[in-house]
Amino acid sequence: MAFDYPAPFLQLARELRRLPGIGPRSAERIALWLLSNKDARPGQLSAALSTAETAIRPCSRCGFFATDDLCEICLQPARGGREICVVELATDILPLEKTGSFRGLYHALGGRLAPLDHIGPAQLRIESLQKRLLTENPVEIILALSADVEGEATTNYLVEILEPLGIPLTRIAHGLPAGGGLEHADQITLLRALSGRRPVAER
Amino acid sequence: MAFDYPAPFLQLARELRRLPGIGPRSAERIALWLLSNKDARPGQLSAALSTAETAIRPCSRCGFFATDDLCEICLQPARGGREICVVELATDILPLEKTGSFRGLYHALGGRLAPLDHIGPAQLRIESLQKRLLTENPVEIILALSADVEGEATTNYLVEILEPLGIPLTRIAHGLPAGGGLEHADQITLLRALSGRRPVAER
Repeated sequence: MAFDYPAPFLQLARELRRLPGIGPRSAERIALWLLSNKDARPGQLSAALSTAETAIRPCSRCGFFATDDLCEICLQPARGGREICVVELATDILPLEKTGSFRGLYHALGGRLAPLDHIGPAQLRIESLQKRLLTENPVEIILALSADVEGEATTNYLVEILEPLGIPLTRIAHGLPAGGGLEHADQITLLRALSGRRPVAER
Repeated sequence: MAFDYPAPFLQLARELRRLPGIGPRSAERIALWLLSNKDARPGQLSAALSTAETAIRPCSRCGFFATDDLCEICLQPARGGREICVVELATDILPLEKTGSFRGLYHALGGRLAPLDHIGPAQLRIESLQKRLLTENPVEIILALSADVEGEATTNYLVEILEPLGIPLTRIAHGLPAGGGLEHADQITLLRALSGRRPVAER
């Protein structure tokens, strides 16, 4: 008869294994560490998980992580009535925020159009975006979606339904990434970099 | 003003970062996944942690993970009165068990002698080993400690105090690991492999 770890141990390893980037060996190693290392504080991790799960919800306006009805960003009075930057996921907001160059509000769609996965406009936060545009009356709508096929399709769909509103509509630039040499860029990136070229004087 | 994730999110990421093999970026990625992915079940992971923490304790006899006073291995009646295999950590037991060739009991010391870290014989489960040997009267004591300096020192100490008991005392073989070519083995491994050579007929 072969022995194994007790059932609560195996259950913990199974749950850890579901985390992204954690394989079966890492999961076992982490579970062993949590249960046998003096410095491990499994209770604190457990509490942090429960607290985060109950305390964090999507901001009712933009979809970013919030502990109240509105998130920290939406609560800033100086941010309203300016640009609204449309992104796919709540997790796209902080990277943009960290550039330090955007002072408007965000709107996370919660994904992008993917007909094969049965995700159409009704599954995304598009209706709430349209309502926001009517009441908030931003000076510009910036579309900041992924530069892949589904992101493009979603951008095109949004352009179609948002253009009639008469609000200035822009999309973020596609081109050569910072530090990227021409020899490493793929054809589509180069094509977009070329077609998006701007007069030198404009800078 | 730069924004960041809400406090409960940051607390969760901090706790995740303490896990072995999880860096700051992985911790943030896992926290984002736990709080925004539909398939994530943070509550279940939290519950598994609490359950494992409260349900799992060291076996009072051998130190392996147990949910009762004795572990599954010690509860097997056929295992008593045979060999006792001494290992450093409870986590060393299952790898030996998986070889399928050992049918005795184990004894985890809880570490090895490390004077610089103030770990002497009193900090290890050596006294309880001596008591076990008197009452259980095993046919053999097998020392299966690490093949490094501290493991060797601990083995030598155990040999010194256990030899007077008159119980056959052995230690696991050191030599070339399975699949290891001579050209990749270090000098000490080769030295031990040479000095541990056995007559061909013995097999």
